[in-house]
Amino acid sequence: MTSKSIDFAHYIDHTLLSMNATEDQIIKICQEARDNNFYAVCVNSGYVPLVTEKLKGSNVKVCSVIGFPLGAGLTSSKVFEAKAAIDAGAQEIDMVINVGWLKSKKTDAVKQDIAAVYHACGTVPLKVILETCLLTEDEIIQVCQMCREINVAFVKTSTGFSTGGATVEAVSLMRETVGPNMGVKASGGVRDQATAKVMIDAGATRIGTSSGVSIVSGTKTTSNGY
Amino acid sequence: MTSKSIDFAHYIDHTLLSMNATEDQIIKICQEARDNNFYAVCVNSGYVPLVTEKLKGSNVKVCSVIGFPLGAGLTSSKVFEAKAAIDAGAQEIDMVINVGWLKSKKTDAVKQDIAAVYHACGTVPLKVILETCLLTEDEIIQVCQMCREINVAFVKTSTGFSTGGATVEAVSLMRETVGPNMGVKASGGVRDQATAKVMIDAGATRIGTSSGVSIVSGTKTTSNGY
Repeated sequence: MTSKSIDFAHYIDHTLLSMNATEDQIIKICQEARDNNFYAVCVNSGYVPLVTEKLKGSNVKVCSVIGFPLGAGLTSSKVFEAKAAIDAGAQEIDMVINVGWLKSKKTDAVKQDIAAVYHACGTVPLKVILETCLLTEDEIIQVCQMCREINVAFVKTSTGFSTGGATVEAVSLMRETVGPNMGVKASGGVRDQATAKVMIDAGATRIGTSSGVSIVSGTKTTSNGY
Repeated sequence: MTSKSIDFAHYIDHTLLSMNATEDQIIKICQEARDNNFYAVCVNSGYVPLVTEKLKGSNVKVCSVIGFPLGAGLTSSKVFEAKAAIDAGAQEIDMVINVGWLKSKKTDAVKQDIAAVYHACGTVPLKVILETCLLTEDEIIQVCQMCREINVAFVKTSTGFSTGGATVEAVSLMRETVGPNMGVKASGGVRDQATAKVMIDAGATRIGTSSGVSIVSGTKTTSNGY
């Protein structure tokens, strides 16, 4: 498959998650997403009402992160935030697992945390962020198997706020573990078309990036952002 | 005032907020806090039940961060998390303001966000994290004035997850703005007794740190943690 045959725009969750992002910056990425027919705009839940308003009448979906970026809050608060974001207009939910519990071998608690948010989401697709840079291969496999059992829509590599982003190795391992039908989202550090293509070739079906415009146009970006 | 006359232990919120912190690491800081008679142990809300259990029978308080570290979630989800953390045993709440709204001049929304969590906390002391490294002096003054009007217990400098931690300049400005009676918590990068003393001299009445043991013993720490 050549790069030209990939419809990159349909892969892009156009993303702005920095804590000092302004309304004007959020409005700008909504307009870029409309202009380029991106799949979604991904923001913190506090901006879901604004993004819902700005994407009205378009096909671009509203995506909210939950328990972000640490994933270390109480399960009940992740569930509440997911429901509140959906009530405010979110059409996709990206939650962070509790990595500390995983590292403490509290496997059941990690799975219940994911399952609780999954049930709160109802028909809204749930993506589960593993933060692969902090996990061993065995842990990546373990969480992907949980996600497969729960039947979430996507596993996702990274928050973009930890020590590393998406890697070909992580995306390949996740794809291999979840099988051909579940979504895999590569996020963190995907800033140009060549990198996006490598991730898609490795099994990614969605790309989380602040560089969506550069990716579809094939130009390089100077952004250091997520 | 000489260093020897300061009871450093009483200033310390012994803190572990990294997303991959394990139960064993949390239990260790609870034991250190008991052994050294620190003021509180500060964790993400997912560890509040464990910390509450481990501090039972001691005078050390349980402190939970909320909306941490981005502060960019929906107000309703911060309120829910604060209530859930208190239900789980939290005796102090450290919330992050919505910096993006502040930068967007949505002053009323920033104030309402703080006030909503304040009311949810009831008699539980609320600390409001400004993330001073991202704010101008005018913005620091503005948020401190809001906090004074709402009558929260503390203003706090930093999450420890952004571009900088507590500075003497920020602590002095916050003390000057909130007056003599409100608490000021210096957090982020305070890792030895000399730095703790400088912060206290500048007006801090609480220190958030992972280096509490080094601070009370007067030894240097090699920790790079929060």
